[in-house]
This record gives sequence, C-alpha cells and structure tokens, in this order.
Amino acid sequence: MREDYMPQPIADVSPPRWHLGHTTWFFEALILREFIKGYREYHPQYAYLFNSYYQSLGERWERIKRGHLSRPTVDDVYAFRAAIDTRMEEIICTCPEENWLELEQLIIIGINHEQQHQELLITDLKYILCQNPLHPVYRNLPDDAWPDVMPSTNLDTWVEFPGGNYTVGYTGDGFFFDNERPVHTVYIMPFTLRKYLVSNREYVEFVRAGGYTDFRYWLDEGWSWLHREGRRHPLYWEHDDGAWYQMTLHGYRPLAPNAPVTHINYFEAAAFATWAGKRLATEFEWEAAAQQTHPHVTDGQFQDTGIYHPLSPSPSETAHRLCQQLGTVWEWTQSGYLPYPGYKPVEGALGEYNGKFMSSQMVLRGGSCATPRDHIRYTYRNFFHPDKQWQFTGIRLADTLSD
Amino acid sequence: MREDYMPQPIADVSPPRWHLGHTTWFFEALILREFIKGYREYHPQYAYLFNSYYQSLGERWERIKRGHLSRPTVDDVYAFRAAIDTRMEEIICTCPEENWLELEQLIIIGINHEQQHQELLITDLKYILCQNPLHPVYRNLPDDAWPDVMPSTNLDTWVEFPGGNYTVGYTGDGFFFDNERPVHTVYIMPFTLRKYLVSNREYVEFVRAGGYTDFRYWLDEGWSWLHREGRRHPLYWEHDDGAWYQMTLHGYRPLAPNAPVTHINYFEAAAFATWAGKRLATEFEWEAAAQQTHPHVTDGQFQDTGIYHPLSPSPSETAHRLCQQLGTVWEWTQSGYLPYPGYKPVEGALGEYNGKFMSSQMVLRGGSCATPRDHIRYTYRNFFHPDKQWQFTGIRLADTLSD
Amino acid sequence: MREDYMPQPIADVSPPRWHLGHTTWFFEALILREFIKGYREYHPQYAYLFNSYYQSLGERWERIKRGHLSRPTVDDVYAFRAAIDTRMEEIICTCPEENWLELEQLIIIGINHEQQHQELLITDLKYILCQNPLHPVYRNLPDDAWPDVMPSTNLDTWVEFPGGNYTVGYTGDGFFFDNERPVHTVYIMPFTLRKYLVSNREYVEFVRAGGYTDFRYWLDEGWSWLHREGRRHPLYWEHDDGAWYQMTLHGYRPLAPNAPVTHINYFEAAAFATWAGKRLATEFEWEAAAQQTHPHVTDGQFQDTGIYHPLSPSPSETAHRLCQQLGTVWEWTQSGYLPYPGYKPVEGALGEYNGKFMSSQMVLRGGSCATPRDHIRYTYRNFFHPDKQWQFTGIRLADTLSD
Amino acid sequence: MREDYMPQPIADVSPPRWHLGHTTWFFEALILREFIKGYREYHPQYAYLFNSYYQSLGERWERIKRGHLSRPTVDDVYAFRAAIDTRMEEIICTCPEENWLELEQLIIIGINHEQQHQELLITDLKYILCQNPLHPVYRNLPDDAWPDVMPSTNLDTWVEFPGGNYTVGYTGDGFFFDNERPVHTVYIMPFTLRKYLVSNREYVEFVRAGGYTDFRYWLDEGWSWLHREGRRHPLYWEHDDGAWYQMTLHGYRPLAPNAPVTHINYFEAAAFATWAGKRLATEFEWEAAAQQTHPHVTDGQFQDTGIYHPLSPSPSETAHRLCQQLGTVWEWTQSGYLPYPGYKPVEGALGEYNGKFMSSQMVLRGGSCATPRDHIRYTYRNFFHPDKQWQFTGIRLADTLSD
Repeated sequence: MREDYMPQPIADVSPPRWHLGHTTWFFEALILREFIKGYREYHPQYAYLFNSYYQSLGERWERIKRGHLSRPTVDDVYAFRAAIDTRMEEIICTCPEENWLELEQLIIIGINHEQQHQELLITDLKYILCQNPLHPVYRNLPDDAWPDVMPSTNLDTWVEFPGGNYTVGYTGDGFFFDNERPVHTVYIMPFTLRKYLVSNREYVEFVRAGGYTDFRYWLDEGWSWLHREGRRHPLYWEHDDGAWYQMTLHGYRPLAPNAPVTHINYFEAAAFATWAGKRLATEFEWEAAAQQTHPHVTDGQFQDTGIYHPLSPSPSETAHRLCQQLGTVWEWTQSGYLPYPGYKPVEGALGEYNGKFMSSQMVLRGGSCATPRDHIRYTYRNFFHPDKQWQFTGIRLADTLSD
Repeated sequence: MREDYMPQPIADVSPPRWHLGHTTWFFEALILREFIKGYREYHPQYAYLFNSYYQSLGERWERIKRGHLSRPTVDDVYAFRAAIDTRMEEIICTCPEENWLELEQLIIIGINHEQQHQELLITDLKYILCQNPLHPVYRNLPDDAWPDVMPSTNLDTWVEFPGGNYTVGYTGDGFFFDNERPVHTVYIMPFTLRKYLVSNREYVEFVRAGGYTDFRYWLDEGWSWLHREGRRHPLYWEHDDGAWYQMTLHGYRPLAPNAPVTHINYFEAAAFATWAGKRLATEFEWEAAAQQTHPHVTDGQFQDTGIYHPLSPSPSETAHRLCQQLGTVWEWTQSGYLPYPGYKPVEGALGEYNGKFMSSQMVLRGGSCATPRDHIRYTYRNFFHPDKQWQFTGIRLADTLSD
Repeated sequence: MREDYMPQPIADVSPPRWHLGHTTWFFEALILREFIKGYREYHPQYAYLFNSYYQSLGERWERIKRGHLSRPTVDDVYAFRAAIDTRMEEIICTCPEENWLELEQLIIIGINHEQQHQELLITDLKYILCQNPLHPVYRNLPDDAWPDVMPSTNLDTWVEFPGGNYTVGYTGDGFFFDNERPVHTVYIMPFTLRKYLVSNREYVEFVRAGGYTDFRYWLDEGWSWLHREGRRHPLYWEHDDGAWYQMTLHGYRPLAPNAPVTHINYFEAAAFATWAGKRLATEFEWEAAAQQTHPHVTDGQFQDTGIYHPLSPSPSETAHRLCQQLGTVWEWTQSGYLPYPGYKPVEGALGEYNGKFMSSQMVLRGGSCATPRDHIRYTYRNFFHPDKQWQFTGIRLADTLSD
Repeated sequence: MREDYMPQPIADVSPPRWHLGHTTWFFEALILREFIKGYREYHPQYAYLFNSYYQSLGERWERIKRGHLSRPTVDDVYAFRAAIDTRMEEIICTCPEENWLELEQLIIIGINHEQQHQELLITDLKYILCQNPLHPVYRNLPDDAWPDVMPSTNLDTWVEFPGGNYTVGYTGDGFFFDNERPVHTVYIMPFTLRKYLVSNREYVEFVRAGGYTDFRYWLDEGWSWLHREGRRHPLYWEHDDGAWYQMTLHGYRPLAPNAPVTHINYFEAAAFATWAGKRLATEFEWEAAAQQTHPHVTDGQFQDTGIYHPLSPSPSETAHRLCQQLGTVWEWTQSGYLPYPGYKPVEGALGEYNGKFMSSQMVLRGGSCATPRDHIRYTYRNFFHPDKQWQFTGIRLADTLSD
C-alpha cells in the first residue's frame, strides 16, 4: 500500500519512502558525485532531504520530521531510484580500468549500506503496521510455513568453550566494516553458552514469575525505562483472555512457545538472564564460540526466506553445536560498542559510518530473520542503545567457568 | 496526491485522511446509530480511530498519533464514506414523517460539522505542503486570478459606531451553534473600527521597525512564545535577498503588499495593534458593527471562490462601510471564549461540541477564505488558543471613543 | 527557620528569601534610582537577581532557578533591606515639597507591591511546608482559635440582584491598579449569588459522587490537567482511613466540614459548579453585588488575623447579605483577565505591572485570609491561570435569572 | 553558610544537607537496624527522605525533589548524626566477639560510602557556588598556595608499556568494592600513555582551533549534547576580555595554564584526544600501567590537602614515570562500565551499590583532588555517564603501539 510508505510513529522508525530515497542518495552522493565530472544532482534538495547523518555531506532535514513530508511522492522516489540506477550502470560500463578498484569498493559499500536499510525497511514497516490497532498483515503465509516445533533435546543444553587468548576481528579478504578491525588478541576465561536461544515459553515464565515487577533483576536504567513506559511484557505482545498473542508481519497470532523470544531490549535481556541465574555473553565470547562452532549462513533464517519472524529451531539446525547462532535474532551481548585497540575511522564521509556512534550502545551479534543472508559474518558488530526494542533481538544465555 | 493525505506535522494538523474518516464517522455515530435499529457499525474500530474528542462516544486513538497510522488506506476511507452516504440516503428517503424534524436537525449539524472540517482540510493541507522545503503547489492559479490592488482610499480610514446597549447572539430561525446563545444585552462604549484589514505592507513595517525584538508591544506569554519558537515574522513568510516571500496553496510567491496579513496569532495581532497605538475589537463590538454595516456573504472571499489565500480588497468590497468584514481572514478579537450569560450546553454528545473548550481561548469573528460561504454568520464565534497561527487569521484595528 | 527561606519546589513558588530581596529591590529600582542623583546600587548584581519580570529594568536571573542560589544569604538580604529602608527614610525626610506628590505615589505603589508579596510569602511558604512529608507547622494555634461552626441558616441560601446597566471600575480617589480602570458601564442580566461559599462538606460530596472521574463536569483543559497530574481531590488534602485531612500552616488537621473549600483551581471550581447545576459569577456580577451588599473589610478574615486558613463563617458574618465576600478566599470568576474598554498601561516599567498578563488567565475577586486587610477593595482584580491551586482560592456559586 | 546546605540546582547535585542525612541513614539502615534488636528508628520518615536508591530498603523521596524540602533543618540533621554516632559507638563497644567481623565489615563499608559522599559534598557544593553569578568563595587560599608551575620537561613525554596478558582486579586483603572483582586476565596490546595530564593551556588551544565547532572530533551523542546545551568550553570557564577565567571553590581566578584541565565530560575528553590524534586509555591499560609505575597515594593531590582544585604538577611528582596518576583529576577511560567476567553482585541491599549501574556509563580511574586519600587504589572503578562534567575529571592521552 502506498500509505505504508509514509508514517514515522517514533523517531527510530523512518518512513519506508525515506529509506528508498536515502539509499539511492547514498549512491549519488558517494559515487556519482565523485566519479562523474561536473555531475549535476538529480534534484537540488534531495541531498537535504535524504542525507541521514553525514555532516561532511551538508545540512539535513531533521530526523524526527521525516514523516512530516508528503513530497517527494513514492513515485517521485522510485523515479529517482531508476535514474540513479541508470547512471550507476553507465559508470560501471564505462569506468576506466585504472579506476575500477576504487569504484568497485564504493559500490560494495553502497550495497552493504543498502542491505542494512533492507533490514530496517522490514523492522520499520513492522513497527508501522504492528502499532496500528487494525493489525494489518504485511504478507500472508500458509499455515504450514510456520511450524512451532519443540526441540527434541533439552532446552537447557550448554556448550563449553575453553579459555585463553583468542584473535578476534575480521581477518578475511572480503568486505568488512571498519569497526571489525584491527584484528587483535583478547583473553577470555573458560565459558559456556546455551545451545538454544531463550524461547517465548521461557520468557512467559519470567513474566509470570513477576519479572517486570521485581527490581532485583533490572539494571537501574532498565527499571526506570520500564516504569516510564509502563511495560509489562515485550513489544508487540498482547495478553487476551488468559493467552498471549503477538503482532507479526504475517498477522496477529498466538505466541509460538518454542520460537525464540524477540523484540526485547538489552534491559529485558539482562533482566531475564539475571532471573535465570546466568548472564549474556560478551561479544568476544560470542565470536570465539563461532570460531569453533563454524555456523554457516546457509543454515540460518534470514530475510531471504521471506518469513520475517523468528521460527523455532528446525531439526537441521538442532544438529549444530550452537543452534541459531547466525540469523533468526540478533543476540544482545554485554559488551559496550567501543573501538577495538588501534581503531581509526577512515577519512571523509565514510568515517562517519560507524566510529562516531561508539558511546552508550551495546553490541549485538549474529544477524536476524530480517538480515540479508550474504550481509552477515562472525565478526559483524551491530549496535543499539540498550532501550531499543524494535529490531529482531533475542537472548542467548552465557556463564563463566572457573579457570 | 495520495501522499498528501497522510502526514501530521504538528498536533493541531490532522492528516486529511483523518478528516475524511472523522466527518464520515460523525454521521454514523450521531445519526445512523440512533436512527437505524440494530445498526451494525461499518467497522468495529473506526469509532476508536475517528472519534475526535467525544468522551460520551467512547475511547479514542490519541490525537498526536493520527499521523502514525498507514491504515485504513485512503481508498478504505473513501469506501467508508460511500457506504455511509448510501445509508444516509436510505434513512432520509425512508424516514417517517414524525421523526423527520429530529433527523433533519442532526443532518444539518452533520453538514455544519463537515463544513468546519472542510476549512480545516484546507488549513491543514496548507501546513503539510508549506512546511515542506520543496514548496509543493496544491493548485496552480492563472496569474490574473490574483491581482494585488492598492485600495484607492486611505488605508487609515475609520468607521465610528455609537455606544449603548446592544442585543447580541443569534436571533434568527436557521442553524446556529449553542455558544451563540442566549441572546443577551451588552453595553458597549462608542468605538471605531478601521475600514480595512491590516495589510502585509503594514505588517512588514512593523517587522522592520523591530516589532519582534521590542518587548513593549507584547503580552508576556507572547514574548515567551516568540523566544521559545525563535519567531521573527509570520508563519509561511521567508526573507530572501531583501524581499519577502510567502508559501501559499497556490505556490511560493512574493508577498502581496496590499493583501491582508494572515497566519498571525493573537499575540502577533495584539502586538501589532499596540505598536500602532490601537487595539483589537471585542467580539461584541465586532457584532454590533456588523448589525449596522450589514455585510453580505455574497461579497466576501470564501472557500467557494477556489482561491485559498486572502486577496487585496476588490473595488466592489471597498464600497462597503467596513471592507472584508465577512470572509478573507478570521479577525482576532480581544474577547476570551467564555459562555454567554445563561449558557447551558445541550445534553448528550453534542454538549461536548463547544462548551468544554471555554477556557484559555480567544474569539475570532467573520470567517476566512477557507470557510464555506454558507457556513458563516455575524454571530458565529470561532475560537483558538492565542498561540495558534495555522488558520487564516488577520487583524482589524479598533479604538475606544469617549462617551 | 532559615531553611524555610530557601526552596522553590515549583516555578510558581518563589523562595521567601527572594520575595524579601525582590520587594526591597523594587524600592531601590523604582524610587531610589530615580530620586537620588548619582545613586549607586547597593550591590551591582542584586538587580539581576531580584528583578522579577520588568524587561525595562534589565536582564534577570531565570525564574525557575530562584531556588538554585544559596547566596545572597538570608542575613545578606535583611542587611539589604535595612540599608534600603534607611535610604528611603532619608529621601522621605529630605524630599522637596515640589517632588513630594510624585514620591508619595511611588511609595504607595511600593507598599501595595509589598502587600502582594506578603500574601505570596504566605502561600509560597505554605507550599514549601505542606508538600513536605514531615508536615511541618508554621505557627501553632490554640485549638479554640479555630472553631468550625455550621451556619445556622441553610447553606443553600441565595441572594438576588437586579439586571441593568452598572458602572464598574475604581471610582474613588485612593490607590488603585491601572487594570481597575477606565470606569465603564456594563449591562448585567438579573442574577443570583449564593450567600455562602462552597464548604468542604459540599466539596467532599462532589468528590464522593465521582466528581473527579466524570468528564461531563470538566472543561477539556481541566480534564487533561486532572489526568496529567493524577488528581483526585484538592491540593493539600489527604484521605486516610476513611477520613479527610488537610495540611495547613497551622498543622495537619482533620478537614473542617463547614469551612470554605480552598486551594482549588478554576477547573475544579467550574466542575463543582457544573455538578451543582450552577455556574461561577462574572467579575462584573461580583462587583455589582458588592455595590449593593457593601461588605466591610473589617468583617473579613485577612492576613492581619494571623490565621492563615479559611475559617467557617462567624455569626457576625452570617448577618451580612453575602457572607465572606471580602477576605477568607479569593473567588474564581468566569471572566477572562482582559483589558477594560479604553485601558492603556502606564508608561515605563510600571506599565509592565498588569497589562502584559492579559491573556489566558481568569479574574478572581475579594481577597483571602492571606491578603493584608487594607490592600483589598471591591474593584480589585486578581488573576491566575486556570490550573493554579496554590493560592487561597474558593467557590461562590451564581446563576442567571430571566429578565 | 547554612544556606549553602540547601539548593539542588541540577538533579545530579544533591543539597549538602541531604548528603549528611543520607550517610547517617546509611549507618542506621545497614548497621543499627541489623545489630540492635528491636531498634527503633531515630525518625519514622528519615528513611523515606534519606534513602538514595536502595529499593530493598523501601520507598524514597524523589531524587530531583531533594532541594524542595526545608525540613529537617541543618540542625535537625546534625542532631540525627550525633544520635547515630552515639549508637554506633555503643554497638562498637558492646559488640560480642563473634559478631565483630561482620560488624567491622559493615562499618568499613559505611566509612567508604561516607568517603564517596565527602567527595560529592565538594563537587556538589562547587556546582552550587560556581553557578551563582555572585561567584561566592568557599575557602580563601593564600596566593602562594596555588603556584602554576610549568613542568621543566616536555609535556609531550610518553611512557611505553609492553603488551601481553595482565591480571587485573583487586588482589589485596583490604577493602574493595564488588565491581573490582573477580580478578581476571586481560590481554593488552603494547601501548603508551602520556606522562602528563592534558593542561588548560593545551585545552585552550583545542578551543581556539575550533574544537567545539568541528563535528569531526566528536562522538555523535557528544555533538548533540554540545548543541543542545550550547557549549563552547568546559564547565566553570568564562571568557572575558580576551582572557580565560574559571570558577573554583577558592574563588574566581584566571585559568592556570599549566594545571590539568578539569570538569570536562567524556565527550570533551574523547574529542580532545581525537583532535590531538590520540585516544583515551582503556581501564585495563590504566591499571596495567599503574602495576608498573607504582604511584603512591602520598604523592597525589587529594581532598586531604584542602586545595579543591587541580594543581599543576609539583617537582616531586614530575619525578615519577607517570605524573599525577593518582589524585588531582579522575581520568576518563574509553571502557564502558560493565561487569568483570564472573561478576555477581552481593546479596541484599548492598547488591544495589554498584552492579545495577552497569549500562551506558564510562569508567574513570585514579581519584581526584576531592577524593579522600585513603579511599583510592589502582583497581578502583569510578563511573559516570559520558555527559557529566561536575566531577573533577581530566584527560590522559594514550596510544596503541604495534605488537
């Protein structure tokens, strides 16, 4: 529906139309303007309207007012996209050999940037539709597309990992973001991760046990958040006549007990872990584990499946040492989003991509059912403020072992 | 454009789509539900989404979140309208003689309510388009549709009215709102009104003379408003390279010097009057004058003309004792919006229409270029908070004469 | 206690120390600076700290930060006062005959200004002490100082007043504020006022009858206020074990059923009146009544009695046509605080005294138990925003009679 | 001055009177109530008024309203203190041998808690006095108490530390806070720290070079903070006629060029470091360095010196490998305040002391001129939100060396 392209119900959620314009502008601002001599912008004010936060690239329309604009229309933005696509094809076809490497790199960044916004398109659209009391459905799914299978093994299965010095950070030769480097050594104590993500069934137990009314489980800022917002359960859940329901992009449905809990923020994740007598993993434990469990992106549930809601673990997944480590839900870690030792942002506008956000946020790992499959890797560091709930975020419990 | 139906850039401005749904719901809630036995609502949640402020009629979606909803879509709302129109026609055609009077009265209220929202549709759409840096045009006008004629007489022409007891309030037998009654007597001192509304040219002089930087002209709350909002001129004005421009529904245009100033709030109107050594009229002076000048709605500039911006006075209008008294712009009065002596709101939901807003607002008189012509009358009391600018509001100066 | 001079728990409530400094500065700024050639200010920054809102007299320390300052100390401020008193005595003794009239007028204004702050000292101190959970007592009273006498006559006694043209505004030759002039004529319909103020007993009935939970009694802004603030009863009331108590400057005491209700705002006053099927008086009805009932200030309960809480009517007061019309509690009227016809503020700083507050406020009449006795008169117009509760405000019911 | 005990100009700054009541209550709530059978509280509401954030210990008066209370008076609070001191002496003298260890531990916690509030007393009093336009002096110092000596060595002297696994956390057998444990291993790359703290002279250079107007140096949240607050320089600095001044507890003085910059928040510290082409140390680098430089608390500038403002380095201090590592100013690290591996808060109320604050804050190390000398140790982890400026905080630059 054209209307779904428009609203911005909270500052975090951009109108889908804006995402389209912004990712298009990204190609124009970072590539066409650089590579086409005398390039004239498609529209003199689109940079103003579609720049997100790049101060190097000029003034911007205020973020919280993205939903205040009715123009450019959706058709206008698609026309913008088509025009920029055409120009991109032109320069790809005509790029001199000696410039190709530089162009290729920028295109790859542009694509990765676009993949991030593909995920945001889904999560933002979800917020737009799911806060609507009419409960609109984004895409109907056949009933059997969505089994809710109880794992045959015990949920409370734990996998141990040895302590010692590990090398972390991106070591491959493909694309990576600057915050995944420098590669460096970290010492990790022996630790254990739970094989399975925390399920809705378990989270309901936490809710029933008074999880949202007992301060002992909560960080101080979390307890304030909970009271300020009047929360009693995760985002998109509703309690109706003794049963739990949840809004999904595929409709309003009974809460699937065996599926991983999602749309919980760091405060909720940490509170659950405290209640359970465990904790969250650090981002380095998570990465060290992945170095040993070798999860394959082909096994995970990603955007490419067309099911935009975390499924309960499939039999093939339960065969892995850690189940659902890549895809399904982003896993909150208890690591602050901070620079790796020796980190320096790149020069120019792209230096604003990651580094300037390194305060007050927490790292998440592993990607979600809304992440494009070929966008993720072990070393990928996602980050959100600890009160954010609108991403597909979940919980994997961890614990420390004695040396 | 479908997109123009969606945004709510400030709380005061409802999305056009909401106005359509709301006025339709008004017929359903106040007429169909009453007159059709066992009436089943068109949609179980539309009352929740489209009720504005009628507490008697149940819970409502929060006002400031009207722009957060992408559904029902524009088509959905038009379908709702068509369905309710059909049902309305049915009951009109089948209404028993003995119920006709009651039904007729409610329909007339429904139409008057709709007329008010027709005006809001224009002013809200104006806000949506005119705060957009792209300066979209709602409707192009031929250049000669918009002459800017300097009145041949002196702008500073004043009309005197005698003092004494006047009877005010609606005395006719047509439709009126409950706040126009009881008819009562007021004593008014001899007074004088300026023949012409304050023009843009005059308001520019005020701005140039430091009107927005000299506290002496301003009410205390107005001075705070001005600083909080950082205002230096009326809404929709822009200063560019030494000249003044303004956004209109018919495009971005040079400020017309002879047209009445508009989109100024009560604070600005009162500050201008103080600067000019005059004051605003009371609502009773305004009405007493109208009893003597007999303005005809046929002369005024109303919504029906299709020009949604105040024009400079036409030669035919300058022939009247007071020029542009009806239509063109609402005239701020210095009367608080308070009950007439003996006022009692009607019983039931319609009792919430006017009476409960009788605090902290000021009365405006006369209608504007966005008001439907057959909606206005001398006794009509419009009301807004003193900081509101988004209506077509203007200034007529007044002064007191000695007895 | 020195400590009681310090806090500013809400913006409206200034620290007592500030009141002392401000009233002292008023004499310095408006008299000494004018009358003593080459006058050097007592302290170069006291004007900055103690100017309230006189923009003509320079920059000011922000109002909401008056409680942020620990210096000047209380002793410093008393020393300031003593020094200014000395200078005032000097110029009074040495003033040349030809300047005396001008000086006298300014001194009278300074004294009237000080009287207003004497009242505010009491109401602000009350807020400081009564919001404190320790329930501090400002001044103990003997138990018999505070009888709670039920009037022997029926509370529901009404006094009728004829309609017609009345002359209102200050006509005497004593001191008055500029907002009490020009004297002018108003037409008033026949009306009736209740002899007695609304009592606590009656207000408790309103509370018990669901007064705070039924929207039908409330102005729209009042209903929002009530929900935003979570109010269920007047300020300073507490419900404990089935009985009502109230904080007073003379301690925490059972609510006196026959005493007038106080600390209710305009919204509460209007809601009570609506519930009772009546209304509030206009300020002109109130003044017209006083012209006929001739209340004497000597009968009323004022600050001079040393009892800073409204008492139930004494036998001598019940002998009057209207009981407790002057003193005891300020009576909310349903008149907006707006200029009288022909009103012009005086030139200079004193022009900021009254006129610039003429928006969004309501008029109150009659003075209270915190008002100095010789400060009040029939024509005195007090004004507060409709949500304010911290003054000694009460309710007198009115109704309209047919012509 | 009694008055200085009262204000709370910002939420972070508690009235000194409150600190006195709170630390006293801490002994009553955590020791007397536990150790004296049938203990009756000194005052039934002091727990409500003086509990800071211990949810286990009951309801609390709202933090931002601590400055709203005039009672209990300063004398009341000192009397409370004297009474609790007496009871503490009693139980110390009469404690049975078998309970002594437990009692001793709690007393030591109580004293450490009090030491923290002694520091806050100074920083809060500083805020109260230094935001006052009268520039009050807390304590005059002889001029020679405050030399501003330029270090004879180059400020740009760096000290290298080897990489490798380090053991961090408190290993001694004295008092420590639970957040300093478990002792654990961290791997650190070779790094270098600047011998000297950043001086005012250097920070002025940063300001002059446009440090506060160039987004490239700032974290995104820092840039927002700076614009929201309109900052152009550190807290307590003023620019007057071409020279820089600063408010101190010892008066308004020219900025001492060689003294360490202070009252800068994490955003400012990080921006300076970025401008200088360096970074801040991690908390583990800081601790690893201290393990090798062995700073002695006897050398540092602490509260005990009676000079509550950072001094330029004394000759004896410049003899150390790292100058002013303990005392003088808290050094911002680029480590998030997060739990050490295996951290579990203690049971009961004391479990709320540190653990629940482990989100969104940054670690600071080393103590300041307001810290009691025997309160600090290498492993001590202080923590504040990145926007806080009112503590004595400063900058030590760091850099990474290649392996």
